[in-house]
Amino acid sequence: MCDRPKNTNVRLSLPAVCIVWQTAMIILFGVFIRYNEESDTHWVEYKKENNIPSDIENDFYFRYPSFQDVHVMIFVGFGFLMTFLKRYSFGAVGFNFLIAAFGLQWALLMQGWFHSLDYTDGKIKIGVENLINADFCVAGCLIAYGAVLGKVSPVQLMVLTLFGITLFAVEEYIILDLIHARDAGGSMVIHTFGGYYGLSISWMLYRPNLDQSSRLQGSVYHSDLFAMIGTLFLWMFWPSFNSAITDHGDGQHRAAINTYLALASTVLTTVAVSSLFQKHGKLDMVHIQNSTLAGGVAVGTAAEFMLMPYGSLIVGFCCGVLSTLGYIYLTPFMEKYMKIQDTCGIHNLHAMPGVIGGIVGAITAAAASESVYGAEGLINTFDFEGEFKNMVPTKQGGHQAAGLCVAICFGIGGGILVGFILRLPIWGDPADDNCFDDEPYWELPEDEESIPPVLQYNNHAINKDV
Amino acid sequence: MCDRPKNTNVRLSLPAVCIVWQTAMIILFGVFIRYNEESDTHWVEYKKENNIPSDIENDFYFRYPSFQDVHVMIFVGFGFLMTFLKRYSFGAVGFNFLIAAFGLQWALLMQGWFHSLDYTDGKIKIGVENLINADFCVAGCLIAYGAVLGKVSPVQLMVLTLFGITLFAVEEYIILDLIHARDAGGSMVIHTFGGYYGLSISWMLYRPNLDQSSRLQGSVYHSDLFAMIGTLFLWMFWPSFNSAITDHGDGQHRAAINTYLALASTVLTTVAVSSLFQKHGKLDMVHIQNSTLAGGVAVGTAAEFMLMPYGSLIVGFCCGVLSTLGYIYLTPFMEKYMKIQDTCGIHNLHAMPGVIGGIVGAITAAAASESVYGAEGLINTFDFEGEFKNMVPTKQGGHQAAGLCVAICFGIGGGILVGFILRLPIWGDPADDNCFDDEPYWELPEDEESIPPVLQYNNHAINKDV
Amino acid sequence: MCDRPKNTNVRLSLPAVCIVWQTAMIILFGVFIRYNEESDTHWVEYKKENNIPSDIENDFYFRYPSFQDVHVMIFVGFGFLMTFLKRYSFGAVGFNFLIAAFGLQWALLMQGWFHSLDYTDGKIKIGVENLINADFCVAGCLIAYGAVLGKVSPVQLMVLTLFGITLFAVEEYIILDLIHARDAGGSMVIHTFGGYYGLSISWMLYRPNLDQSSRLQGSVYHSDLFAMIGTLFLWMFWPSFNSAITDHGDGQHRAAINTYLALASTVLTTVAVSSLFQKHGKLDMVHIQNSTLAGGVAVGTAAEFMLMPYGSLIVGFCCGVLSTLGYIYLTPFMEKYMKIQDTCGIHNLHAMPGVIGGIVGAITAAAASESVYGAEGLINTFDFEGEFKNMVPTKQGGHQAAGLCVAICFGIGGGILVGFILRLPIWGDPADDNCFDDEPYWELPEDEESIPPVLQYNNHAINKDV
Repeated sequence: MCDRPKNTNVRLSLPAVCIVWQTAMIILFGVFIRYNEESDTHWVEYKKENNIPSDIENDFYFRYPSFQDVHVMIFVGFGFLMTFLKRYSFGAVGFNFLIAAFGLQWALLMQGWFHSLDYTDGKIKIGVENLINADFCVAGCLIAYGAVLGKVSPVQLMVLTLFGITLFAVEEYIILDLIHARDAGGSMVIHTFGGYYGLSISWMLYRPNLDQSSRLQGSVYHSDLFAMIGTLFLWMFWPSFNSAITDHGDGQHRAAINTYLALASTVLTTVAVSSLFQKHGKLDMVHIQNSTLAGGVAVGTAAEFMLMPYGSLIVGFCCGVLSTLGYIYLTPFMEKYMKIQDTCGIHNLHAMPGVIGGIVGAITAAAASESVYGAEGLINTFDFEGEFKNMVPTKQGGHQAAGLCVAICFGIGGGILVGFILRLPIWGDPADDNCFDDEPYWELPEDEESIPPVLQYNNHAINKDV
Repeated sequence: MCDRPKNTNVRLSLPAVCIVWQTAMIILFGVFIRYNEESDTHWVEYKKENNIPSDIENDFYFRYPSFQDVHVMIFVGFGFLMTFLKRYSFGAVGFNFLIAAFGLQWALLMQGWFHSLDYTDGKIKIGVENLINADFCVAGCLIAYGAVLGKVSPVQLMVLTLFGITLFAVEEYIILDLIHARDAGGSMVIHTFGGYYGLSISWMLYRPNLDQSSRLQGSVYHSDLFAMIGTLFLWMFWPSFNSAITDHGDGQHRAAINTYLALASTVLTTVAVSSLFQKHGKLDMVHIQNSTLAGGVAVGTAAEFMLMPYGSLIVGFCCGVLSTLGYIYLTPFMEKYMKIQDTCGIHNLHAMPGVIGGIVGAITAAAASESVYGAEGLINTFDFEGEFKNMVPTKQGGHQAAGLCVAICFGIGGGILVGFILRLPIWGDPADDNCFDDEPYWELPEDEESIPPVLQYNNHAINKDV
Repeated sequence: MCDRPKNTNVRLSLPAVCIVWQTAMIILFGVFIRYNEESDTHWVEYKKENNIPSDIENDFYFRYPSFQDVHVMIFVGFGFLMTFLKRYSFGAVGFNFLIAAFGLQWALLMQGWFHSLDYTDGKIKIGVENLINADFCVAGCLIAYGAVLGKVSPVQLMVLTLFGITLFAVEEYIILDLIHARDAGGSMVIHTFGGYYGLSISWMLYRPNLDQSSRLQGSVYHSDLFAMIGTLFLWMFWPSFNSAITDHGDGQHRAAINTYLALASTVLTTVAVSSLFQKHGKLDMVHIQNSTLAGGVAVGTAAEFMLMPYGSLIVGFCCGVLSTLGYIYLTPFMEKYMKIQDTCGIHNLHAMPGVIGGIVGAITAAAASESVYGAEGLINTFDFEGEFKNMVPTKQGGHQAAGLCVAICFGIGGGILVGFILRLPIWGDPADDNCFDDEPYWELPEDEESIPPVLQYNNHAINKDV
């Protein structure tokens, strides 16, 4: 792969993919997608027919603030978190923007076919909850982007997203609908799947000579600060992420509290481990930027359960420790011995905490009881209704564990498949000595003016001498 | 204009304007502005008298989350979007802050007189919707600021804002109340007006020798990243912008969905055109920062209508293409042949998409039918009540088009008028070789310390040699 | 203090403190903290028993959007506001993150014991309002951090936070519950206390030779822009801060309006004074970053009262003037003659405006009347119920003033006490010539790559010559 000369010119392929796929979206939306009863002008009649007393009962008012927070996480959170590389910040925030904007459209269709199809007219009816789910679906692909950051072309990212969204929708349908696992914050469905999907692709695209780009695989002072913008918006809005699609009322309320607590706990143990394992006890920005978020991932499944405030703290405690240790020991190990080059360390931030989250969810579900949840509360929380009305907590725990396995399998299997496709020599990916660099895909500004005048003068003088 | 020596000292004029105008605001607020029934302590009695069952029915809970999103767009969105210039970031974010903070006070008064005057006591009664409208009103002036960015003094900006808000309130009253056009997201009222207002002012303030500042009319790597903060917050919160003052219930819900979709579509076509028209297919940050937002502008009027999800995608598709082509071809053309120097390219981001939005709104309104909207839905959506209860969709379409014309006329006419005033040689604007520079109006930090120690040492050594 | 050699290695102390305290939190949460009736699965039964018609009446929907805004203020607002120093941005945003994440857990316990203890089972029952209050409580410590920014170790900050939260919870209980003062936005409880707490600690930790670090006590161009991110998020979301825990309905509505107006007014007078007192009328970024926020502080207590829109503008007007003058005259005076080194100028941004806010609150409360508030409105607003049902406005004014005194006393007294503890030579604080520097506590990236290639080449050439 590394011997052939590389052509990173995407002048035909990138516009072609964007225009063709966007046109396809318009056609498919024209055929399939309509407003649902809460976003259609017929709402006023629907309200009367269903004795809904007020517009405030429209799902919009339950979920829109959370939706906007999730939206910020997807575009600013993920986008800026990846700007830490000194010369790949345009690619980080720009390609994140591109694949999220495409992915959410395709997700509305894919998820719509599985979950929001109105069988009376064959249309997908969308409302604010669909927008949130589309953002969630995109998150899986953005996680995967973290593993291959700086090593792929935008066209490859579009392909990664197209397949990623498709696989996501299928595994989500299997896990949530067929297996009837609960996964409010997507520990399994989003983070485990997305993490292993990205790691498998990175494994398939292994570059033995990546050290030729090592001069660019690091941060500068201000790029680390830009990354902290991403970190903090992810951290702050994670309670909205985990509570965005949980039950109205106590469900959203409890999920937000649990996530808030888990994340607070993670910060302290991340700092502790980061300091303890560095010479002189200095903190490492990579850990602060990433591991502080692991608690939010790991509490995703169980956030809506009666995890209890101390339970959330314990989950956060463990994840801060494990995730930081992952950055210190596991990422170098995986690169050296397993041929997995994981630019952002998504294994430590998403894959591993996602698996922990799935396990915590299974245990918490299996341990649920009527004495803690109340009779009605138990049914509401675990949705023991319809064809699952005979379900019991212990059995639900097993289903949760089954869901976790499906997520891992889809992630690894899908990643290998897509990795094969992405190895075709047609995508315009950069050469080994040209990775982590915006230069192949972006018009870059001349940065000379950032040097203050006095210095420039000196250098001009030197230029003459030399 | 360019031959006279320039005095950029605003030490008397800027404080004088700020203090006098702020004092005037206090007096006028004292005479005119009070809380409305939902923000006054009498709410508890009002609630009983009107059989309002719960505090949650207070308009605050319908609109406050959207208000805060709009607020972020005004101050962080517009402010940071303009930080892209390498040495004018303080002016971008700082003057944006200043004129927005002044403008919203004057807007509360001007819009209040037209829309919220309580004739029983001659007071303007304000609530959260007034705050949103004030922010909207300010947006018009901030758009205009984009055209003259780096070429005017803060005192000129205050004058631009004073007149801009005044003109806005009048054209808004004519368009929304007299003509009865609908314009939820302000494609016409905000973007078309603001765009042409700024372009006309820039035309009046044409600087033939602006190329003397060309060394500063560009970005550096990190200033482009700061600008992306502005871009993303505008992009993410635009659904809140377009839905902030639409009808409770389905109106807000639908406007948010349409805007979300239009913006997603715009990103893909912007990327496509940006790549296609650059040598080697590299993306241009100017396009990503600006054209990706055009879809939000263009869907502003029709967002609350039954535009349909695919309709939103189509609007976004076209605007991404046109706006990017505007940056590539139209902005240089306008500068060279029409003497319009448009620093931020507001013609491509606001004026042109605003006109498209007005046209889309007119067509969508004219095509509305009871079969799609439902009888009650049609009346609700287009507000066919009171003196307009005999209105029909086709006629409404004509009114929409009339509204668009009014917005254009007010923008151009107002801009020429204000441009005349701003040409007076008393405002402290910078010389032609001193534009796009924070130095005249800001105390700047010494930046030498940003150079790493090793380098500095060398330069000190050189200093001695030289 | 300055003669002994300094050891800034916190490799044992920082991890030890983090792990021990986090473990203590888990145990205490396990013993004490549970969900309240609105976040527990029993909500569905609670709803029925109390005839609550809809999930939308859950306090979550009244307060969660405001909570998220407050959360952003705490982590991005305070964190980035302090990044202005050229080489202490990691410490600013990173330690802010650390102490906020720890502080909020301890605050949930401390405030819970005073305000949310369920005497039937001895448990603290938490919901979204507790999360907001915990964030508020943390704000007090973050304000104090501003005074000692760059001069203390992270371990000292943890100690500062532990005692700060404890003192906060006690003074808050005295002021709000025993004295029955009202303080919605915490002018007294948060800002006055936090301000004097930090100033007293800084006084106790006075460094006579701090000028040895003066080369680092300034900003660079881009660090000032990062700080503006903090400024703007604080400024924009302050209406949410002051309205987050006020009464449902008009209380939240009015508090948001008053804060919005006060802040707008402050911006203009800050700009005026900043320009007037600088040579050539140039604006100073320090003032724009900080003084523009003073109006939000000062309107904190009275925001929920009938302060009237013009009253809010007046408060903002005065605070912009006084706060900016404070930065120009008072901060140098305090450093020179009072031995108080106040890195961020918290006296001008929090302490002084907090006191003004307390006074405005006392006057506004004393001047309240039934004719303005309505009979029921007066009782609701001032909570003249239960044991305080015979309270009258004039007397309330006295109680407000008493509350202010308590806040000042707790701040100064607590600060001196904690200052004593922090002077122990065991905390790993930096030497006088090593302040305002991330180097002692952070692994820093090599910044050479930020210099563009051409320049580097020259310097390499020079290296050889030299």
